[in-house]
Amino acid sequence: VPRVVDHEQRRREVTEAGTRLLAAHGRAALTVRRVADAVGCSTTVVSHYFTDMDDLLYEVYTAAAERARARLDAMAAADPADLQGLIEALLPLDAAREQDWRVWFAFWSEALHVERFGLDQRSRARTTTQRLAKVMKGLAAAGRLDPECDIPNAARRLGALIPGIAAQVVFDPAGWTPVRQRAVLAGELAMLGVR
Amino acid sequence: VPRVVDHEQRRREVTEAGTRLLAAHGRAALTVRRVADAVGCSTTVVSHYFTDMDDLLYEVYTAAAERARARLDAMAAADPADLQGLIEALLPLDAAREQDWRVWFAFWSEALHVERFGLDQRSRARTTTQRLAKVMKGLAAAGRLDPECDIPNAARRLGALIPGIAAQVVFDPAGWTPVRQRAVLAGELAMLGVR
Repeated sequence: VPRVVDHEQRRREVTEAGTRLLAAHGRAALTVRRVADAVGCSTTVVSHYFTDMDDLLYEVYTAAAERARARLDAMAAADPADLQGLIEALLPLDAAREQDWRVWFAFWSEALHVERFGLDQRSRARTTTQRLAKVMKGLAAAGRLDPECDIPNAARRLGALIPGIAAQVVFDPAGWTPVRQRAVLAGELAMLGVR
Repeated sequence: VPRVVDHEQRRREVTEAGTRLLAAHGRAALTVRRVADAVGCSTTVVSHYFTDMDDLLYEVYTAAAERARARLDAMAAADPADLQGLIEALLPLDAAREQDWRVWFAFWSEALHVERFGLDQRSRARTTTQRLAKVMKGLAAAGRLDPECDIPNAARRLGALIPGIAAQVVFDPAGWTPVRQRAVLAGELAMLGVR
């Protein structure tokens, strides 16, 4: 195996171990020692790939954000006008997406106090809202949205509803089943006249 | 000053210092040393009031939740049918409410991994949703809500929208001014036929 592949694979293994630790036990579990134990390597190896645990936290967060973008892109490729489908790609409707939300919530509490993290979070949230607005403009042009709809306002609301639903789900999975998550979203889209 | 008053006042001072540290610097700033320095007392005094920093974190969170409930109660006393006003009592429309949200976000990342914290968070979220549903039932009975409105579904959506908006605001205060927060909420209530 060429050394560069080995390097990237090992870095990915460390990131995945960090993701599982962060999702299961929170930011405090992200120590060089615990990550090394989870990967089955020495602490020197972990330190080789990540300067410090904030560096690993950022990589774990970025990987989760990239998975979300890949889900969005896949849904948009299937049907770029399926607003419900696009939003569902981001909701914690299965274990994988719920794990990603646990990563984001752990990251948020750091992002509130680390400027570059906060700016990244802001940028991603704005991008999501813009993406929702763009899909809604397309729906409006096709006569598939209430013509009275204030699109920037509605896109902001949908952009806020996504993390809002996710926050309810992670603390109350029994009260917020996938069926209920979809119903809460569908109710909003129906009121917006999406068809 | 009687000793019992002194005790409670000192405990409140420690909680307030913990609140400021948590909101400004996150969970990692909640150490016995930093809290003691902020209060201007010895670490022994802090340890006298709080078993450990999770204990203080919980007190800081509870105090923030109590402030929110007091705001809600005050609004409900003024006009129990003012749904927009009730929700605005919880939104980060000023510095005090934004600080409380920063406390909650810091608490959330712990609550995901500490069972009693998670149960408390779930209980408070359910109570808020039930409270919203109750107000909506009153509006419906008074003919001040779209008669087609699915109240449990709409109350869940409003309950999710509140932390969702708050999460956008703390990372993007310029993009989520109080005017915009109110407009995003007003758009939802207009669609629900609230009048």
